[in-house]
Amino acid sequence: MKDLLLIGIGPGDPRQITYEAVEALRRASVFFVLDKGTQKDELVRLRKAILERYRPEGGYRLVQLADPSRDGQAADYVGAVQDWHRQRAALYARMIEDEVAVGETGAFLLWGEPGLYDSTLRILDLVREGGLAVRLQVVPGISSVQALAARHQVPLNRIGEPLTVLPGRRLAEQARIDNVVVMLDGQGAFAALDDPDLIIYWGAYLGTADEVLIAGPLQAVKARILQVRAQERLRKGWIMDTYLLRRTL
Amino acid sequence: MKDLLLIGIGPGDPRQITYEAVEALRRASVFFVLDKGTQKDELVRLRKAILERYRPEGGYRLVQLADPSRDGQAADYVGAVQDWHRQRAALYARMIEDEVAVGETGAFLLWGEPGLYDSTLRILDLVREGGLAVRLQVVPGISSVQALAARHQVPLNRIGEPLTVLPGRRLAEQARIDNVVVMLDGQGAFAALDDPDLIIYWGAYLGTADEVLIAGPLQAVKARILQVRAQERLRKGWIMDTYLLRRTL
Ligand SMILES: C[S@@+](CC[C@H](N)C(=O)[O-])C[C@H]1O[C@@H](n2cnc3c(N)ncnc32)[C@H](O)[C@@H]1O
Ligand SMILES: C[S@@+](CC[C@H](N)C(=O)[O-])C[C@H]1O[C@@H](n2cnc3c(N)ncnc32)[C@H](O)[C@@H]1O
Repeated sequence: MKDLLLIGIGPGDPRQITYEAVEALRRASVFFVLDKGTQKDELVRLRKAILERYRPEGGYRLVQLADPSRDGQAADYVGAVQDWHRQRAALYARMIEDEVAVGETGAFLLWGEPGLYDSTLRILDLVREGGLAVRLQVVPGISSVQALAARHQVPLNRIGEPLTVLPGRRLAEQARIDNVVVMLDGQGAFAALDDPDLIIYWGAYLGTADEVLIAGPLQAVKARILQVRAQERLRKGWIMDTYLLRRTL
Repeated sequence: MKDLLLIGIGPGDPRQITYEAVEALRRASVFFVLDKGTQKDELVRLRKAILERYRPEGGYRLVQLADPSRDGQAADYVGAVQDWHRQRAALYARMIEDEVAVGETGAFLLWGEPGLYDSTLRILDLVREGGLAVRLQVVPGISSVQALAARHQVPLNRIGEPLTVLPGRRLAEQARIDNVVVMLDGQGAFAALDDPDLIIYWGAYLGTADEVLIAGPLQAVKARILQVRAQERLRKGWIMDTYLLRRTL
């Protein structure tokens, strides 16, 4: 048996990690780091900073992986993602076989919360279905959704109401927006909404030194958010943002 | 100005707290603890255990508050909760005035994530509207939703799908269940669903020594969950449970 840890490390601030996560990462001898191309180099650096902070004495290996590229324009979105997961599963299986000796512990440091829009757990299920015997442990982490709410000092839901979290491409089909958090929104889907009663709480690079927050009535602040987004994306080469939409009563 | 901290402490395991939360609770000189009656004594004890662990040297005060009781049977649910919030706001305002000196820091240790079905932030907004000058800081915490997903080793959402979190009383009105997490469900609303394609991941007392997990096709495990729930509630005098429902593809 090989042990694998999926550790949520929070949305960017190295203090937004739990004691449980730090105990877990102190048990690992190998860390797998997915390399998503130059624009995301900074995310790899942030993971290394976490290791330097909580494993100052070293004594672990870092294995960097080139991520198989995904067809972002495919008409069948779910199908394209599934294909990509299978490719990743083959890559992970090889890596785990090569890099984690029996009795050793390997770990993935996952951005935010491992259960929220992260495919690592699904891919490791494929790896196990493929016959590799691994024992998993999942350690929760603070998601960017929670960092957003905390920084804006706003509850995620109103009394007794549901909260919906969704990817940007699913926003347009929402019949009624009570409390909706949008992630993975490359296009700025909020800009297409013309409901005058919506409030937006928007945040980018939450928990990092580049954090930006904007809140207000959607129609009044929409243009400013689009502008700041474009400007930051240009400046840093990439952007990570999320927002809460809420209808005023 | 008085400083107030709203600190998320996770769902029960004292290691499921962040470094940021511990830094925050080390700055406070007064902690407010809401007393919800005997059945919840254990939750007060868990908060005290967290303080003993992370503030072993002492040097703080604990202020216990009797919670104004709420009309749980009122026809107007939201109205009844709002009334109760106003009563609580008056109580909190008095307490903050009496117990936190200017320049001192007061703190609330909040169960799970402060932004998720917790009214403290809303009540403190009422306190501020009432004219009391306080500076707030909100520190996110691991919610029971995340603990549930981690213990079952299951993602909260499937590829590209929305996730909905809702209170038990809103479950029946869901037209389509893709990924739904139910909290605050005193009645066991899952039992009324007869869709044969639903899977349930259920957990009670997550993160504590009494943790119970059950997962499987809803129709197959429904009766067992109801039975374990009734039995545990009898044994301990109270229950805290949450579950994820997902339709098989
Ligand atoms: C692949 S998902 C991973 C989410 C992650 N598991 C979590 O719990 O936050 C990536 C999306 O999360 C959001 N995100 C992650 N980190 C963020 C941050 N520091 N600031 C703002 N948004 C962030 C963005 O919406 C981004 O498109
Ligand atoms: C008033 S809400 C507070 C939720 C909390 N803010 C959070 O983030 O988990 C209380 C509900 O949370 C869920 N809950 C909280 N702690 C739990 C635990 N340790 N195990 C299972 N469910 C829990 C239950 O559904 C309970 O009815």
